[in-house]
Amino acid sequence: MRPVYLDNNATTRVDPAVYEAMRPLFMDQFGNPSSKHGYGAAVSVAMKKARQQVQALIGAEFDDEIAFTSGGTESNNAAILSALGVMPQRTEIVTSAVEHPSVLTLCEHLEKTCGLKVHKIPVDGRGRLDVDAYEAALTTNVAIVSIMWANNETGTIFPAAELAESAKEVGALFHTDAVQAVGKLPIHLKSTAIDMLSLSGHKLHGPKGIGALYVKRGVHFRSLIKGGHQERNRRAGTENTPGIVGLGKAAELAMKFMDEDSKLIKSLRDRLECGLIQRIPDAFVTGDPLDRLSNTTNIAFENVEADGLLLLLDREGIACSSGSACGCGSQELSHVLEAMNVASSAAQGAIRFSLSRDNSGLDIDRVLEVVPALVAKLRDPFPACTGYGDGI
Amino acid sequence: MRPVYLDNNATTRVDPAVYEAMRPLFMDQFGNPSSKHGYGAAVSVAMKKARQQVQALIGAEFDDEIAFTSGGTESNNAAILSALGVMPQRTEIVTSAVEHPSVLTLCEHLEKTCGLKVHKIPVDGRGRLDVDAYEAALTTNVAIVSIMWANNETGTIFPAAELAESAKEVGALFHTDAVQAVGKLPIHLKSTAIDMLSLSGHKLHGPKGIGALYVKRGVHFRSLIKGGHQERNRRAGTENTPGIVGLGKAAELAMKFMDEDSKLIKSLRDRLECGLIQRIPDAFVTGDPLDRLSNTTNIAFENVEADGLLLLLDREGIACSSGSACGCGSQELSHVLEAMNVASSAAQGAIRFSLSRDNSGLDIDRVLEVVPALVAKLRDPFPACTGYGDGI
Ligand SMILES: Cc1ncc(COP(=O)(O)O)c(C=O)c1O
Ligand SMILES: Cc1ncc(COP(=O)(O)O)c(C=O)c1O
Repeated sequence: MRPVYLDNNATTRVDPAVYEAMRPLFMDQFGNPSSKHGYGAAVSVAMKKARQQVQALIGAEFDDEIAFTSGGTESNNAAILSALGVMPQRTEIVTSAVEHPSVLTLCEHLEKTCGLKVHKIPVDGRGRLDVDAYEAALTTNVAIVSIMWANNETGTIFPAAELAESAKEVGALFHTDAVQAVGKLPIHLKSTAIDMLSLSGHKLHGPKGIGALYVKRGVHFRSLIKGGHQERNRRAGTENTPGIVGLGKAAELAMKFMDEDSKLIKSLRDRLECGLIQRIPDAFVTGDPLDRLSNTTNIAFENVEADGLLLLLDREGIACSSGSACGCGSQELSHVLEAMNVASSAAQGAIRFSLSRDNSGLDIDRVLEVVPALVAKLRDPFPACTGYGDGI
Repeated sequence: MRPVYLDNNATTRVDPAVYEAMRPLFMDQFGNPSSKHGYGAAVSVAMKKARQQVQALIGAEFDDEIAFTSGGTESNNAAILSALGVMPQRTEIVTSAVEHPSVLTLCEHLEKTCGLKVHKIPVDGRGRLDVDAYEAALTTNVAIVSIMWANNETGTIFPAAELAESAKEVGALFHTDAVQAVGKLPIHLKSTAIDMLSLSGHKLHGPKGIGALYVKRGVHFRSLIKGGHQERNRRAGTENTPGIVGLGKAAELAMKFMDEDSKLIKSLRDRLECGLIQRIPDAFVTGDPLDRLSNTTNIAFENVEADGLLLLLDREGIACSSGSACGCGSQELSHVLEAMNVASSAAQGAIRFSLSRDNSGLDIDRVLEVVPALVAKLRDPFPACTGYGDGI
């Protein structure tokens, strides 16, 4: 059975070239970059290159605007808490109802424990941000806006650069969780008003446990993790040097292949999406069909339990997911689909298929072959007793 | 020229067996452990094993007492901030004057911004904690004690388990930064009153960018980094699965070889130390000669600039350091030696040699051959004009 991995928004396979780039950092160039001897210096050079590779991918003006972190979650936490720390007189946060838990859980915690006011801007049925509500929430009380560039569950893209312009007008900092956007969409930060941006290595064929936070020059910043002077005082702790070098290489590859890859991925995604919708009744795509990541489709199969379907798919060697993989053991409905007002009979049967450059047409063929029958099976409450007990 | 690496307290080389254990996690078992499909399940099993390997190394009672983090610095920050969060009515911290910057910088920040009172317990000339001052600082105002198990600069060992007993009497939580102790000393947490303990992978031949925080069952904990439910709500963010598996393997190896390794390392260290002291006048060992890590010696060469010596040593391919590698660009005297009241004429010439199982007798031979001449050279303000300009 050929395994089919269509859960690339949860995590991606490390690219062999990324792995090769990281390899020497474990046992050969293993020095601490802060050390003053040759072992340290060799690694510093490799780190500088990685910083420039990330800089290039997101179109930052300076490489020192990139601080490496342990991943997207840390970057999001660091950005929001820094803004609140440097602007203590401002006590409001603007975010959206469909953010990743690393933004929403933190905001809810701050609301509860520090009495901050959090505006969760709603979205419409397609997952598009309510821009009027956004503009209305922007006042000089707002310390930080944190709105994602692309949604992990539906792929819906928000106009981050435009939203940043409005935030600037009221003097609020603008942060964007671009964990799902970086490597999939062209990004040119230097021509935007975006102050901070989060990205994560393992979403773009880099390793897990490494990410970065872009902080525009001139933006005051307070580190979340305190200690040594690493990352120009923005992130203390001995640097994850293999991870940093791996992320750099992953950024280089993403940049090199983005145009070509995303066209190919889009055509595979579209074939998958159309094929399923055509073959399966009462199934529809959630999220914005226009402004959407080219690798993602979130399809709601009405009157199906997503978990049951995922289990059957898993047995067939097909990996996909129902919403975000955030370590939730519990079976809650997706907060993203809920915010979009998707009926619960449909939301409970929503499956996210997320592709990457590792997928091929054969993967799509197999999904189109397998899924329709499984959905039918799950929907039929009294399956005919065929195949065993002849003559009954 | 045979390179000699004697900076193992800054960071260690990844053990080849650790590297081998990590390898499959990059491109084969690359799933997100939170995913419900087979790709996730395979990784969860590997993570569970790693947790048990770390549990065994530190003698914890339960494997769920181990939460993986991005390293020692994060673990230290998380422990201290958690304690303050769960005991808001207690507003004092007890720590020592010789902690790592990841504890001291955070404490100083909290003192400045949150008005907390921080007791920095002094040490004596050998680096031993002033236990009377410690006992005197312990009141029911103290939320948390954070005192290291072993010092990174001198190797001096504090009696962490005993100190924890006293903290318990006033109802304060006890945390220990055991980043330099774990893997070097036998640790049996289950029979102690220690509530939290930090460790870091790259100090014990594991990878950089991974660490752990032990939190005793029953101790209330609030995560520093918020988001998904990973690590039983103690550390959000997609897990660094190769790092976790690597740390697990490093823990297993440390446990297996600890007795044998530490004897061998101690004999090398002692030969190095005695050899230098015998060959070089006005040189003395700082730190407690009795309760000290067997891999560390910190030697003060009077009237020498450590930086100059390190540079010359580096040219000879010998790597060691002057105090901690914490990314400090600036040339400050070590806060550890200062707390020990080491005269500045000696402290400025202090060099830390830190060994590991990667070192051999040949490394020691070379240091003993090279260092005495370099110290003499640096001390001589008017080197004789020999070797060039015949007849002058
Ligand atoms: C939109 C978004 N933000 C943040 C994160 C968190 O990133 P990380 O897994 O690197 O912590 C993820 C994925 O997990 C994500 O999809
Ligand atoms: C005693 C001590 N604590 C904490 C740390 C920080 O650990 P990490 O480098 O993993 O952040 C170090 C080393 O850097 C250390 O020696």
